[in-house]
Amino acid sequence: MDEKSSFNMQGPVCPRPIRQWSNVMLGHGSGGKMTEDLIKTVFYPAFSNPILDQGNDAGVFTVGDSPGESRWAVSTDGHIVTPLFFPGGDIGRLAICGSVNDLAMVGARPAWMAANFIMEEGLPMDVVERVAASMKAAAEEAGVLIVAGDTKVAERTKVDKLFITTTAFGRIPNGRQAGGQNARSGDAVLLSGPIGDHGIAVLAARGDLAFEVQVESDIAPLNHLIEAMFNASGQIHVLRDPTRGGLGTTLNEIACQSEVAVLLDEQAIPVRPAVRSACELLGFDPLYVANEGKLVAMVPEEDAERVLKAMRAAPYGGEACRIGEIAEAPQGRVLLRTALGSTRVVTKLSGEMLPRIC
Amino acid sequence: MDEKSSFNMQGPVCPRPIRQWSNVMLGHGSGGKMTEDLIKTVFYPAFSNPILDQGNDAGVFTVGDSPGESRWAVSTDGHIVTPLFFPGGDIGRLAICGSVNDLAMVGARPAWMAANFIMEEGLPMDVVERVAASMKAAAEEAGVLIVAGDTKVAERTKVDKLFITTTAFGRIPNGRQAGGQNARSGDAVLLSGPIGDHGIAVLAARGDLAFEVQVESDIAPLNHLIEAMFNASGQIHVLRDPTRGGLGTTLNEIACQSEVAVLLDEQAIPVRPAVRSACELLGFDPLYVANEGKLVAMVPEEDAERVLKAMRAAPYGGEACRIGEIAEAPQGRVLLRTALGSTRVVTKLSGEMLPRIC
Repeated sequence: MDEKSSFNMQGPVCPRPIRQWSNVMLGHGSGGKMTEDLIKTVFYPAFSNPILDQGNDAGVFTVGDSPGESRWAVSTDGHIVTPLFFPGGDIGRLAICGSVNDLAMVGARPAWMAANFIMEEGLPMDVVERVAASMKAAAEEAGVLIVAGDTKVAERTKVDKLFITTTAFGRIPNGRQAGGQNARSGDAVLLSGPIGDHGIAVLAARGDLAFEVQVESDIAPLNHLIEAMFNASGQIHVLRDPTRGGLGTTLNEIACQSEVAVLLDEQAIPVRPAVRSACELLGFDPLYVANEGKLVAMVPEEDAERVLKAMRAAPYGGEACRIGEIAEAPQGRVLLRTALGSTRVVTKLSGEMLPRIC
Repeated sequence: MDEKSSFNMQGPVCPRPIRQWSNVMLGHGSGGKMTEDLIKTVFYPAFSNPILDQGNDAGVFTVGDSPGESRWAVSTDGHIVTPLFFPGGDIGRLAICGSVNDLAMVGARPAWMAANFIMEEGLPMDVVERVAASMKAAAEEAGVLIVAGDTKVAERTKVDKLFITTTAFGRIPNGRQAGGQNARSGDAVLLSGPIGDHGIAVLAARGDLAFEVQVESDIAPLNHLIEAMFNASGQIHVLRDPTRGGLGTTLNEIACQSEVAVLLDEQAIPVRPAVRSACELLGFDPLYVANEGKLVAMVPEEDAERVLKAMRAAPYGGEACRIGEIAEAPQGRVLLRTALGSTRVVTKLSGEMLPRIC
């Protein structure tokens, strides 16, 4: 694959983050390059520690001394999606699944959650009740208990209706070592289903589109799917849910963390026709549209078929497929073999495409 | 104390919460009666479980089987204080100390935290950096590590500058049983220092007062103080930090949870002269003004002096004092013996006094 090496010449790979903005911009919430710059130039210098610096979806730490020691994980997510209700979900289901999934992506079993509500004065109480009922249903589906909560109220116009922050935590069973830094050359890249549903569904619900789209958000708790995957293989190297920033950004993060190349086959990446049509009309690349019920996994080639089979039999994994492989070089790059047979570099999302998608 | 029994006639004690609002109101964020109504009629029906229903500042749960089992606690708090910076502190110090303190109040040792930032488009990056530096300092003082984080950005006018949600967790050493339900008749009621500093300092910083006030917020991490208290006595029955709603509301919660009466000596409750003057001018009762670095404790009479001595020698406990005692009746009531020798009922805060004080 001679053409790959030339990509090393196209500017820096895994560039150093830059502190180049004097004000917070919408792009800093995109989940893409600007979010990374913000986190790495403002928050890491203040909070840096070996746990946080792992840069995964959840922080992993060890409690106690061997042999009684156990590994724990914690993840937190603020949810500011607008509108609060959309086809396939709402901010309540999102708040549960978002944190459950981030935790499950490091191999942890989500068990306990804390939930925090910031409400706008005047918000109909019925809305709060509908959201709480949705959270209850999602928490039951995921098998987590909400053990702590807090509510705050801000004056009209000081917060947009309702923000929910959730924090999930649980233990990581012994032997699991899933993390963005663990992709290995030769690994198969698996995807649990079609991409872009969540972003397009939320955008359509805003009523800003000049055309009709029939797409439901894919919001779902993926912890049971992940248990099925670990039951099929003890060698799940990487798990990550491509939320803000989409699959393209997520794979770039992994390529940099693991210092490998991700080689994708564009034709193997499933996109629903309605999502593809909407993206074409909007000028979006589905690779950067947010998902809330999908995961990408990297597993050794010899386990790939067994893991895929387990995924397809598990909740929310029915459309799982193989979309590519991991190579040694060019390090830190994601390359897409297009339907036309050419190869293009997939970079991280820069700027902001869809603010407040989660 | 014959006059006490008559208070049983003055309407319901520990009334059942009522779902009587069709919209969220500022009072639902007060930390007083309306907050309790909201939590108990909207959120508890959805999320009810034995851990959450304890109704303490932090959820406590047990992990593993004996003898390897351990008790853990988690607390979460959303911080929407305005302004972001005020004498004695800022939203960053508040965000660390608020969650650290809630966790420490159930006897847990705060060790790990998650931090979540929701920022307004256009917020100066310098503000974010100052807040992060303040959080770093407070986290170091408290001895906690920030192990997970998240950042979101909302459009201008959709969030007021910066909200920070923090979630803290840690283990509870064996033998500690501090909780709002554990006050016992005969317990001494201890307070770690003067009340009302935080509320008045933040209010003054808003620039709305027609007079000058020289008061600094008392924001502080109280976990080291609490360790000193547990070292002095294995019988700390109740610990609680009187934040939103103030000391008056906090003591009412404890009186109801423990089914006891709290008898206070007004002259023993320390209030700084500047805070007292400001409250008189504003028509506020210092008993309902928020604190962020104070705790109230209930301990057996025989341990009271030893605990007080330990508090006075510990960080942020130098002005600790005894403010009253626990009696059997009237159950669920807080009674204040005034400077004039009369006794009055102290109820929970109803409505809202100072929105967005934390």
